Amino acid sequence: MATVSYASYSISCCSMRDSHDPQKQKLNSVKFNGTSTRSTTNVETLRQTTEAASTFSHVSVAENGYITKEQRQNIPTKKQFADPFRQGLIVEGGVGYRQTVVIRSYEVGPDKTATLVSILNLLQETALNHVWMSGLLGDGFGATHGMMKNKLIWVVSRMQFLVDHYPIWGEVVEIDTWVGASGKNGMRRDWLIRSQATGLVFARATSTWVMMNRQTRRLSKMPEEVRNEISPWFIEKQAIKEDVPEKIVKLDNKAKYMNTDLQPKRSDLDMNHHVNNVKYVKWMLETIPDHVLENHQLSGITLEYRRECGSSDVVQSLSEPDEDEILQDAVNQDNNTNLLNGFSLASEIIMGGGLLACLEKKPIRYTHLLQVKGEPKDEEIVRGRTTWKRKIPTMPFST
Amino acid sequence: MATVSYASYSISCCSMRDSHDPQKQKLNSVKFNGTSTRSTTNVETLRQTTEAASTFSHVSVAENGYITKEQRQNIPTKKQFADPFRQGLIVEGGVGYRQTVVIRSYEVGPDKTATLVSILNLLQETALNHVWMSGLLGDGFGATHGMMKNKLIWVVSRMQFLVDHYPIWGEVVEIDTWVGASGKNGMRRDWLIRSQATGLVFARATSTWVMMNRQTRRLSKMPEEVRNEISPWFIEKQAIKEDVPEKIVKLDNKAKYMNTDLQPKRSDLDMNHHVNNVKYVKWMLETIPDHVLENHQLSGITLEYRRECGSSDVVQSLSEPDEDEILQDAVNQDNNTNLLNGFSLASEIIMGGGLLACLEKKPIRYTHLLQVKGEPKDEEIVRGRTTWKRKIPTMPFST
Repeated sequence: MATVSYASYSISCCSMRDSHDPQKQKLNSVKFNGTSTRSTTNVETLRQTTEAASTFSHVSVAENGYITKEQRQNIPTKKQFADPFRQGLIVEGGVGYRQTVVIRSYEVGPDKTATLVSILNLLQETALNHVWMSGLLGDGFGATHGMMKNKLIWVVSRMQFLVDHYPIWGEVVEIDTWVGASGKNGMRRDWLIRSQATGLVFARATSTWVMMNRQTRRLSKMPEEVRNEISPWFIEKQAIKEDVPEKIVKLDNKAKYMNTDLQPKRSDLDMNHHVNNVKYVKWMLETIPDHVLENHQLSGITLEYRRECGSSDVVQSLSEPDEDEILQDAVNQDNNTNLLNGFSLASEIIMGGGLLACLEKKPIRYTHLLQVKGEPKDEEIVRGRTTWKRKIPTMPFST
Repeated sequence: MATVSYASYSISCCSMRDSHDPQKQKLNSVKFNGTSTRSTTNVETLRQTTEAASTFSHVSVAENGYITKEQRQNIPTKKQFADPFRQGLIVEGGVGYRQTVVIRSYEVGPDKTATLVSILNLLQETALNHVWMSGLLGDGFGATHGMMKNKLIWVVSRMQFLVDHYPIWGEVVEIDTWVGASGKNGMRRDWLIRSQATGLVFARATSTWVMMNRQTRRLSKMPEEVRNEISPWFIEKQAIKEDVPEKIVKLDNKAKYMNTDLQPKRSDLDMNHHVNNVKYVKWMLETIPDHVLENHQLSGITLEYRRECGSSDVVQSLSEPDEDEILQDAVNQDNNTNLLNGFSLASEIIMGGGLLACLEKKPIRYTHLLQVKGEPKDEEIVRGRTTWKRKIPTMPFST
């Protein structure tokens, strides 16, 4: 594996002091600033962890107390097998990555389950930590040293996410991620989210990535140098098996729901100075009507990325339910407002546990489009498909 | 310490199977799903961690494979001294909490430093984990068993945050938090954020909390039962020493900057079904002009909370710079656009390294107000003060 050192990112990770620096050991130890704890065994365990951490860590403080940004970040230049701080571990015969994560209080919504946005953020995080552990990370969003030398960045072209169970606040989950080949010039990255306690699979995801020249903004072939870096990490295993990926139709301005004049805020820009992909998903979901969100949970989302969104772009978010949703809409309105009580009774008599109950249980599907308003024509940013399952059946005659 | 068990939250944490359940051990071990890793020593270290974790964990699976929400959350009913999953530790003689946190890729902005919003979220998270570890957590946002029995919730009345250094992407920080008395019926909660590698203090925060009846929405005295629960955790230590807290003046509609018609989105609601406090800060900062944000970093924020914001409220965000900002504004415009080049040269000649340079270095301060538009009058949600330091001096004559 070729690791090319990149001029603007010379990491001087080799210890300027011994990594068993007494100063650092003091900081890592449980007694800090003269404080002590009453705990015994459990603290001992954590002390082992922090000691392990300091063995792992390359950070060292220069004699003058100055610590560089590179030292603060401490990006490994060699493959690491475990990272106690990130709770990360190399698995899958040395090529996959597993991270243990606790769902935080601000990552959940009013129903105390992790939001889709939080989960997508965790997928991004584990992917980057995988590259981080590999020793290949140059800088930024997962570009390897070879990619940086060739002025290449990763761009995502497709992403699919399926969720059976949303993790809840305080729950401990394990996120596995690994990569594989996708055609000649692409890379597939998959994820699996599991309960740490039971091993039950909560969610799975797959994505495809290609390389883009960061100056010309044109897609690029994978240079041999980069292939040599990353291909040893490729495996065949797939989190989601799809024979023929579903094509997402392009919506036009006749779509049922539309949010216009969306503009990225400063806080929506990520460290690549781009509107983060996760923001796109937020914009998409904001078109889904409230009564659907109240009774349904997203069970799947597919995204096809077409172009980047710049910080000055004005964006439109369109969405269109599949045909079934229109009748279901009537059912929901009926439940919510009792305006169509006669219809409800009639339909109960006529259809019994039949069509209506079937519709109740059938997931709702939406097609989405984010586009940039422009002259001479609007330009697509991303197409999407979402699937929504009912949370709990509320109609007495649903089976 | 009285721990009152609350009817709707009966936690059956006692093992239904032995916690050394072979199934779980298998899940915790490194070889998972038939995969193995090439690592040796480091993996061993992490295995120790996960084994420690399983000793700590109370989660167990019923014979039928069913696992309740309570088991999934696994809120401790007794004081814990260490939590390997959260990387948390009881410190300060058994009453404070310390958590090791890695700054994640999506928690940083375009400049690769953690955003204020991310840091405030981490403060909330560590505060809740402190209560979590104490064995006192009933449910939701840090309410103890005694508070739940008395239908009380915590509401924040004041918060102050000072930051010297923003942690960067991938940096490992330690967040300490502890509580103290605030008057007869309130509680103070403080935080300290430090570099894990060097111990350098990055930021400090303090906050005051009072109790509110969740039905009447009126403030409440601290019941004896609750005092008995929480007062053993109180210490005197203060992260920020303030003799006389600065009063924040109330802005009116003549304020220089104003964003109107702000409406909370579904995704802004937290598990208390309220607009999260952190959202208020986002709304405040969005009024700060771009040229200030480009060249400055927030170095301090003080918030005085007045009332809750409901999900249907329409909010206005007002802000007003201190007088100095107006002249500084001219200087910044000058730098950015060169429109006032003559003035710049003149001022350089006239003022030399004097007034202008002084203004350049002096932090900018803003007063803020979030209010709900209403009849007969607007109602205050929160008043704020922010202080902004220049990132790097850009003017050649700044000293």
